[in-house]
Amino acid sequence: MPPRRYAFGRADEATHPDSMRATLAEFISTFIFVFAGEGSILALGKIYKDTGTSTASELVAIALAHALALFAAVSASINVSGGHVNPAVTFGTLLGGRISVVRAIYYWIAQLLGAVVAALLLRLVTNNMRPVGFYVSSGVGEFHGVILEIVMTFGLVYTVYATAIDPKRGGLGTIAPLAIGFIVGANILVGGPFDGASMNPARAFGPALVGWRWHNHWIYWVGPLIGGGLAGLIYEYMVIPTEVPHHTHQPLAPEDY
Amino acid sequence: MPPRRYAFGRADEATHPDSMRATLAEFISTFIFVFAGEGSILALGKIYKDTGTSTASELVAIALAHALALFAAVSASINVSGGHVNPAVTFGTLLGGRISVVRAIYYWIAQLLGAVVAALLLRLVTNNMRPVGFYVSSGVGEFHGVILEIVMTFGLVYTVYATAIDPKRGGLGTIAPLAIGFIVGANILVGGPFDGASMNPARAFGPALVGWRWHNHWIYWVGPLIGGGLAGLIYEYMVIPTEVPHHTHQPLAPEDY
Amino acid sequence: MPPRRYAFGRADEATHPDSMRATLAEFISTFIFVFAGEGSILALGKIYKDTGTSTASELVAIALAHALALFAAVSASINVSGGHVNPAVTFGTLLGGRISVVRAIYYWIAQLLGAVVAALLLRLVTNNMRPVGFYVSSGVGEFHGVILEIVMTFGLVYTVYATAIDPKRGGLGTIAPLAIGFIVGANILVGGPFDGASMNPARAFGPALVGWRWHNHWIYWVGPLIGGGLAGLIYEYMVIPTEVPHHTHQPLAPEDY
Amino acid sequence: MPPRRYAFGRADEATHPDSMRATLAEFISTFIFVFAGEGSILALGKIYKDTGTSTASELVAIALAHALALFAAVSASINVSGGHVNPAVTFGTLLGGRISVVRAIYYWIAQLLGAVVAALLLRLVTNNMRPVGFYVSSGVGEFHGVILEIVMTFGLVYTVYATAIDPKRGGLGTIAPLAIGFIVGANILVGGPFDGASMNPARAFGPALVGWRWHNHWIYWVGPLIGGGLAGLIYEYMVIPTEVPHHTHQPLAPEDY
Repeated sequence: MPPRRYAFGRADEATHPDSMRATLAEFISTFIFVFAGEGSILALGKIYKDTGTSTASELVAIALAHALALFAAVSASINVSGGHVNPAVTFGTLLGGRISVVRAIYYWIAQLLGAVVAALLLRLVTNNMRPVGFYVSSGVGEFHGVILEIVMTFGLVYTVYATAIDPKRGGLGTIAPLAIGFIVGANILVGGPFDGASMNPARAFGPALVGWRWHNHWIYWVGPLIGGGLAGLIYEYMVIPTEVPHHTHQPLAPEDY
Repeated sequence: MPPRRYAFGRADEATHPDSMRATLAEFISTFIFVFAGEGSILALGKIYKDTGTSTASELVAIALAHALALFAAVSASINVSGGHVNPAVTFGTLLGGRISVVRAIYYWIAQLLGAVVAALLLRLVTNNMRPVGFYVSSGVGEFHGVILEIVMTFGLVYTVYATAIDPKRGGLGTIAPLAIGFIVGANILVGGPFDGASMNPARAFGPALVGWRWHNHWIYWVGPLIGGGLAGLIYEYMVIPTEVPHHTHQPLAPEDY
Repeated sequence: MPPRRYAFGRADEATHPDSMRATLAEFISTFIFVFAGEGSILALGKIYKDTGTSTASELVAIALAHALALFAAVSASINVSGGHVNPAVTFGTLLGGRISVVRAIYYWIAQLLGAVVAALLLRLVTNNMRPVGFYVSSGVGEFHGVILEIVMTFGLVYTVYATAIDPKRGGLGTIAPLAIGFIVGANILVGGPFDGASMNPARAFGPALVGWRWHNHWIYWVGPLIGGGLAGLIYEYMVIPTEVPHHTHQPLAPEDY
Repeated sequence: MPPRRYAFGRADEATHPDSMRATLAEFISTFIFVFAGEGSILALGKIYKDTGTSTASELVAIALAHALALFAAVSASINVSGGHVNPAVTFGTLLGGRISVVRAIYYWIAQLLGAVVAALLLRLVTNNMRPVGFYVSSGVGEFHGVILEIVMTFGLVYTVYATAIDPKRGGLGTIAPLAIGFIVGANILVGGPFDGASMNPARAFGPALVGWRWHNHWIYWVGPLIGGGLAGLIYEYMVIPTEVPHHTHQPLAPEDY
């Protein structure tokens, strides 16, 4: 089992300049991501005078906006804060023992604030269009939505763990932000027409607050936190090797093929 | 000729923790990929109330879902299992002498299971939509479908070999998962309207089983295995240098241009 | 505070061969970017006999053209000139104390010239189609356009700083051009239907001059320069660590998780 | 001036195993690229029962197929042959003195053969659809087409030089195949509706031969060779530093900002 180094945080964590910088980075990166993600939906509303994903090309536009912006947002913060940009990612790393409770709380506040500011600014620059947020489409129920969010967020946080956190990730870390952005894009192409495909409570919360739309909202907290938590636990305790290699047949690395 | 180090596997391969972790990684990554790939087709069925690629933007949505998800799935497993996520890739590396028979069997089982679980969960979250899988479209025959799968899977496994396995790949390994995901996306833009463009028996098997659609199914086993096997043999024995450089004019590396 | 090493430039900066090469690289890369960006809009005008982003797939085509071309243009110049390709990026790095005034002026001239030459060549190869440039769409005012350009350019230049300039960026620098290109693509999917989403005075100036369209043009200077300047100041003075770590609990790097 | 090390080739270049492997790699990679590129056009013809880029989403599908496949094809050959996959790239590197005449001729033959085999296999798997190739669309003349091919291929080969050949490219080489694939994708979004946007004589030749369509064909040789040659000469003699740095103020590298 990996050492839970930060179970309760370092003594000075709450006030250390590094914590402050990391929290600022989470705020700005979540802002960048939510501005582009929710903004792409409002942009289609501007073109078509309605909202809701009703054609394949609208779905592609929304998936690309999220994928490209999340990639940039994670890139811009990964060296400072770890590039979470998502309370479910923070929750998964907390359960895996990779960050302290204190830091997790800081990140959550920053992520929610960044999402709210993004939604507010979208309302301003669009001449007062009302953010849309997420809801379950007709034909599927809240139960389906929760399971869908669990499955999709599991895939996201598993990818985060494998590419950005695994101590043996090596050069793979270079493309971690891309893998993280792109799995979100892929999952939106799946889940978009069913429940909007949030995978991120902050992404859902900012537009819900500013657009004051709370119908189905609990799904976008419960689903991602369960899925992200599961991924953190499974990767941490089942995939990351728990013993130091001590014999000659090393773990099969790709170079070893 | 490269040493066939793992022709029959290491004595403890079947029970070694590394084998277990690698098998788990193949299971989860294939699950992530098939969930997004088949899911993107069901999502379009949700939008348009039918299935089948009938417009350019639907084709783009499907190709992107596969490309982005496969990139993430390969990234998430390449350091643990080699990132096969595809029985045809496993078969190519088996013929090339890069993995043992024991490990190949483990991977195949994990990949097929991952695809089945993905298809089952898709059926659940979509409120019981029936997976579509693959078939040959009207105007082309099974013969055309097999050749198409051979050619496309050859390109895929050749790319896998060149970027992720070649011992001289160097820094190129960093973008291997991206090249692997993107050649699949490109090939779907070609083969999608003709035979669906699977290139992966697990991708075809899971939805076929859960949707119980077996028409043309053999094509998606025979084609990819022939194409993947050919690519493994050609790259292994014709492209990878077979002798240690022993003279002064080194192989022309790009830096050498 | 980082040293403002180049506040007034090196004595020989204006005539040093490195300055000349960097200026040439900015000229050519801005040319490549503006040719593809404005060209993609003319290409849609060729298909549909009109201009203006009126469908989701047109918006995707324009966003992809900008994202892919800017990625290549930044890649092609980042080692020679820093890969600005945008007067707002140059302004942000100038305010952050990262380049000299002399060099900034050289870059600005090169960027504007590159954009003008691109617009001229577009006019030639399209058999005299008139470049379109940028304007604020009906339903939003110039005020909304300025704020939108500030917000989007802030995100762009913040990403540039975090991935290409931050002295601690490490291996992240490898994907900096991709993050820079893709945040522009994401932002176009947001801002396109509202104000065209320029984020780059040179991108706006070349087509405006060659197409002689100056309506709303000031927005595309004021907005990007304010947003880019803000991002440079905030990243430089609030995110980049200002003290050398001198104690044992190192800043939390991702490897440290 | 850089040494023209290979002006007439090494004595044994024509028969050396490395030359053979590199030639094989060019053959296979050009095959992969042309199969996907031309194939994406036939796939749209299958969907819509006609050919020709007539909507924005068709243009996006074609641009993505070329971008993604060229990225994979260059990745798969860059360590073996330099990843040219294009006679115009080979011509630019020949003029720049980076490869020998003997090797250039080998590459050209392999590239043309790969494109022809791709077009033949496309004809087979599509149940005899006739390849389309390239032509100048109505409203623009051959003159516009030649200039357009020159400009677009200049951008492509300049990007190749800066990211894959420049001796100072450093870690940038890791993403060179991506930049090369994506500038082609971006340029197709510009040039597609005007002249098809080939930038590659092999890409044009294979389908022209197998579809027997020679109208305007000369444009797709003359344009790319002029554009690629220009880029090779300009980058080699104007951008790459021609003197060894011998004083203390080093060339401004990005780290130096």
